[in-house]
Amino acid sequence: MIKISLLGSTGSIGRSVLEVVSHSAGKMKVLGLSAGRNIKLLMEQTSRFKPKIVSLEREKDAQEFSQNFRGYPVEVLHGQEGAEAVARLEETDIIVSAITGINGLKSTMTAVHSGKRVALANKESMVVAGPLIMDASRASGTEIVPVDSEHSGVFQCLGREDRNYVKKVILTASGGPFFRLSKEEMKDKTPGEVLNHPRWKMGKKVTVDSATMMNKGLELIEARWLFGLEDDQLDILIHPQSIVHSLVEMKDGSVLAQLSPTDMKIPIQYALTYPERGEALLPSLDLGRVKALEFYEVDEKKFPLVGIARRALEEGESVTVALNASNEVAVRAFLEGGIKFTDIPETVIELMEGHRKTKVASLEDIYEVDRETRSKTRKIIAQR
Amino acid sequence: MIKISLLGSTGSIGRSVLEVVSHSAGKMKVLGLSAGRNIKLLMEQTSRFKPKIVSLEREKDAQEFSQNFRGYPVEVLHGQEGAEAVARLEETDIIVSAITGINGLKSTMTAVHSGKRVALANKESMVVAGPLIMDASRASGTEIVPVDSEHSGVFQCLGREDRNYVKKVILTASGGPFFRLSKEEMKDKTPGEVLNHPRWKMGKKVTVDSATMMNKGLELIEARWLFGLEDDQLDILIHPQSIVHSLVEMKDGSVLAQLSPTDMKIPIQYALTYPERGEALLPSLDLGRVKALEFYEVDEKKFPLVGIARRALEEGESVTVALNASNEVAVRAFLEGGIKFTDIPETVIELMEGHRKTKVASLEDIYEVDRETRSKTRKIIAQR
Repeated sequence: MIKISLLGSTGSIGRSVLEVVSHSAGKMKVLGLSAGRNIKLLMEQTSRFKPKIVSLEREKDAQEFSQNFRGYPVEVLHGQEGAEAVARLEETDIIVSAITGINGLKSTMTAVHSGKRVALANKESMVVAGPLIMDASRASGTEIVPVDSEHSGVFQCLGREDRNYVKKVILTASGGPFFRLSKEEMKDKTPGEVLNHPRWKMGKKVTVDSATMMNKGLELIEARWLFGLEDDQLDILIHPQSIVHSLVEMKDGSVLAQLSPTDMKIPIQYALTYPERGEALLPSLDLGRVKALEFYEVDEKKFPLVGIARRALEEGESVTVALNASNEVAVRAFLEGGIKFTDIPETVIELMEGHRKTKVASLEDIYEVDRETRSKTRKIIAQR
Repeated sequence: MIKISLLGSTGSIGRSVLEVVSHSAGKMKVLGLSAGRNIKLLMEQTSRFKPKIVSLEREKDAQEFSQNFRGYPVEVLHGQEGAEAVARLEETDIIVSAITGINGLKSTMTAVHSGKRVALANKESMVVAGPLIMDASRASGTEIVPVDSEHSGVFQCLGREDRNYVKKVILTASGGPFFRLSKEEMKDKTPGEVLNHPRWKMGKKVTVDSATMMNKGLELIEARWLFGLEDDQLDILIHPQSIVHSLVEMKDGSVLAQLSPTDMKIPIQYALTYPERGEALLPSLDLGRVKALEFYEVDEKKFPLVGIARRALEEGESVTVALNASNEVAVRAFLEGGIKFTDIPETVIELMEGHRKTKVASLEDIYEVDRETRSKTRKIIAQR
């Protein structure tokens, strides 16, 4: 029986995790759930999965929740401490970190100190605090298994291979909904059009990031820390079918690749069962029906955030924190109707041009750069 | 320093093995070479690689060779015993078995008794004697590492995976030179046209087998024994680019694939260096330039030998021996101008329809079925 604490249970990844649990024929059990403000869904999840402890972002939601579950054997917490308590649950085997954005950083860090397994979906934590997280995992013996499909693919391809023989890791990108449009044609795309991703059903933030291709930039940075690679060992290929998730080129020219149907349940299940493998939750991939797998170079003129992320990857320290913060603010402004789609990269670029690199040695340093960047980004947006 | 005995040094695989050795920067050394009748090339190889022992098929060639190398520290042998002496060389670390056809069976068997590593390119041995070879390797502790690009791909994909989680192994086939032709259009293809393979530079026998797709049938049988699979766990996909060599579908729906430039030096080098990896001997694969990887189902009406091989795979015992023997005879007859290209499958099918399955418990049993099948196949050809 695999016992799970799930951070971010009402988000897209969280819901898929619970689908995997419900198809595990009793081999998986959820002990703790933490959510944001979606109290209704958390109540449904609690009725169905019977966790011992749940946590909501706001105290008033926690109170309302408690009233609804009076007499049930569930402890109801709230706020950052609540989420961290879910991450620290003693009987848990695996903590799934699936909160979006830098909001997930503290509870991810708590999980990484556990000495257990962390199934990591919160890529922003790795982007802003990769070296701190990897140091903590080495010190505590926590095993970090990636949930992102691309990183899960790399993890599977690496298999028994000695890391010294890895030449290059290539993450694929669907190219998002606008891969075939010109910059001009992207300009007036509404949130509704941006959120209509051709291949993946995902949360809003990552779907917008996918359309700007910032998602792939963040994933390069995540991969660097997760797999201990140099910045020049990472590359991206556009692959519109989203069937090959990543490729690992070995020193001798042999390339291993991971493919699967385009559904997050597959990497999620693997992160929970590894080194074992669970039963298939989807029909087999049928390449004879797919017919062709296409690959293209990224046009960085059309998707400038890829180049910006690559430079942040080389610089490290506060630069990746600023990259993430300005992007989070710009994406939110776009979703709220405050800026145009193509203003997202322009806002991030303007912020990054003015950013001065500082050392980052603690979570406090990170939060300081994050706060400052957010405020500057809001000013840039206000001036548009 | 990896010390190598090479059985079949003057064939296509043998020559590629020596190229890999010559690019190993002194990390590999050839101790023994066995060849057929190509005395001229064996003399060149001997001058260059300075083996301690060589063997030729015929005694008179061995005598001529000895005269040419009088005073050199090289022992010159001949015949089956000579090849087996090369396979048995005590200081050798790896025996490369690269003789084509059932001719390679005895020396492969000698190698498999060594308790060392056998880099296996002689697929026909596995086709006719798979269970005997695998039993012998288990008893002696000999590790068999495949050289065939498809099987090397499977071996690499399996990595640390538990075999119980393997659902299916898919070998790719280029489809050969006639993949897009109708059966009628294939009919009058000459040996010259057949030997002009679009992707691979290989020996004559395997190039003809590739055009009839018998090669893939033989590889299915080889894969079955090599990886301990059931007959329904094996499949074929046509992949004209010959970049993806094989795919392994795991029980959970995740698929691992191995890709590389279309050159035998890559799987040969891996079989010699595994679990380490040598320096790249070729430019990296550039998928952005390849653009599309295509996959198609096999049309078994056009390539009937695939279905015949699949049934032989299910039947086992003498049936795979008869399959291999009738095919070897038919291919040779085609290359010598005795039959048309499309007579190859027709001859094999006619032979197989008349074959009565017998138990195969020893090499003697195999040779008996082989002899009998060859004589019957020649009669079928003579009656055309």
